[in-house]
Amino acid sequence: MSSKIRIGIVGHGNLGRGVELALTATQDMELVAIFTRRAPDQIKPITPAVPVYSLADIADFQTKVDVLILCGGSKSDLPEQGPMLARLFNTVDSFDTHPKIPDYFAALQQATCTGKTTALISIGWDPGLFSLNRLLGEAILPQGETYTFWGKGVSQGHSDAIRRVPGVAMGVQYTVPSEAAMARVRAGELPKLSTRDKHLRECFVVLKEGADADAVKQAIVTMPDYFADYDTVVHFIKADEFQKNHSAMPHGGFVIRSGNTGNACHQSMEFSLKLDSNPHFTASVLVAYARACHRMARQGQSGAFTLFDVAPALLSPKSAEQLRKELL
Amino acid sequence: MSSKIRIGIVGHGNLGRGVELALTATQDMELVAIFTRRAPDQIKPITPAVPVYSLADIADFQTKVDVLILCGGSKSDLPEQGPMLARLFNTVDSFDTHPKIPDYFAALQQATCTGKTTALISIGWDPGLFSLNRLLGEAILPQGETYTFWGKGVSQGHSDAIRRVPGVAMGVQYTVPSEAAMARVRAGELPKLSTRDKHLRECFVVLKEGADADAVKQAIVTMPDYFADYDTVVHFIKADEFQKNHSAMPHGGFVIRSGNTGNACHQSMEFSLKLDSNPHFTASVLVAYARACHRMARQGQSGAFTLFDVAPALLSPKSAEQLRKELL
Repeated sequence: MSSKIRIGIVGHGNLGRGVELALTATQDMELVAIFTRRAPDQIKPITPAVPVYSLADIADFQTKVDVLILCGGSKSDLPEQGPMLARLFNTVDSFDTHPKIPDYFAALQQATCTGKTTALISIGWDPGLFSLNRLLGEAILPQGETYTFWGKGVSQGHSDAIRRVPGVAMGVQYTVPSEAAMARVRAGELPKLSTRDKHLRECFVVLKEGADADAVKQAIVTMPDYFADYDTVVHFIKADEFQKNHSAMPHGGFVIRSGNTGNACHQSMEFSLKLDSNPHFTASVLVAYARACHRMARQGQSGAFTLFDVAPALLSPKSAEQLRKELL
Repeated sequence: MSSKIRIGIVGHGNLGRGVELALTATQDMELVAIFTRRAPDQIKPITPAVPVYSLADIADFQTKVDVLILCGGSKSDLPEQGPMLARLFNTVDSFDTHPKIPDYFAALQQATCTGKTTALISIGWDPGLFSLNRLLGEAILPQGETYTFWGKGVSQGHSDAIRRVPGVAMGVQYTVPSEAAMARVRAGELPKLSTRDKHLRECFVVLKEGADADAVKQAIVTMPDYFADYDTVVHFIKADEFQKNHSAMPHGGFVIRSGNTGNACHQSMEFSLKLDSNPHFTASVLVAYARACHRMARQGQSGAFTLFDVAPALLSPKSAEQLRKELL
């Protein structure tokens, strides 16, 4: 009988496939089932032996799955699936609609109270590891400021906005942290910076045949909310270059705590990510926290939690003794 | 009656003074006493109202102190004071002799078992925040390598070695991370690098009158164990320049996890510190973990722990609700 942690995946988009991949890199966890709202035979798991079931049948798997990793979207999937599934299973999700986190947390708290289950919400990198570093920064250096820079990375919303401009065949937008703003922060200037001060918007566009480049560029850089208030650069490229260089989902960013101790001592803490694949990395974080979720559940810690509540040792397959010896 | 966390400091060197300073930046903690092995009237607290007592009388303060922050050295102070004081008080320390951590942990485990107290050991940045990032890196990206670079910062041991060279009036040694090695790591090359490959040694020396610069330089760069195997640079400077530019204790470094998800996706996590004052920063970390220690003790979690066992939320004065709303 296997003593591995038995994982179920709900949803098999980019994130769900990333979780499949991340699980193959672990020794102590195994994927036992994928659940989908689509017809199960339409899903092609990366690991062919893994069975795929209809989400409608998931209640039959309560004794067969230790932790469910929810890979649906935050807009409509998770608000519905999270509370429903946390009544039956221990769950981990990457709910990332910042302003709705308190409501989502409350819903999961109720669900886990009913189910005596354990739910870790908003796991990933922002919210997630970036949040953790924001907390560490202000707890350790209370006199100071925290700066979050995003990118270089693809913004899905802004890319969609570009693609709606008449004359655009293909388009992608990268959010790029401003080097000048980062330099000021790292120098300990403690500047006041808006999101706009901290980022540039870089667009790569393939035109439709006959489209007017100047008109497209104007439409983009003057677009209210999305681009008008930002430094925006538009590059026109050919379709084959677009497909070759702009089809991945890179992302990353920086959390910098710039603070002081005493009068004159500047102290700086910086955490950064440089990711070739945003969904793969988020999936890797979810898998590490699924290990913690399983352990918390076994210790009888039921309820809804965020990564602020998870002791780091719970994330590692190593024993506490090994961790002290090898990593401390 | 105050509801602040009542802190006692044991030892009033650079680290102890840093803790005093760090406590003044908190709202929820107060310094109630400093304990010393010296004559109490020789100690000059930064905050003049704070009483100073002889360490010999510390047992009288069990009901007056919530957490003791131990600011002695790892070589001889902590191995003796840690187990003795953890029988009577909740303690936090920065024990940093890596190979002796398992033994020290065992001694504190026994002491806290006797005292039903809570002890957090090896708190600081390395061991400490760097250890935490090494854990996060390998738990999240199991396929990869972790690289720790130290510096730019003063190495006390190497500075002492320089000062023992005949002809040296003043001397300081900075450990400097190799830019070339960091670039290879950041590029995802996963190179095999020894401590020596990763660091340069930069020395600033003031000569005694009449000393032979070449002889001093040769004695330094050929010194076995300390310098012979490293790229070492020696600068000769004047006494006033030394006092102006080389009297501080800056330090810092980098923990980089370079990993892969799937076949081709490179993912990189990086944590770095740039510190004007190494002891001030270590003190700031100790103070945040003293808050956690107090909370763990009140929750009935007695025993010896490292920062791997501390849920991040315990470090912050904010409520769990505030943390979710403001920082997640």
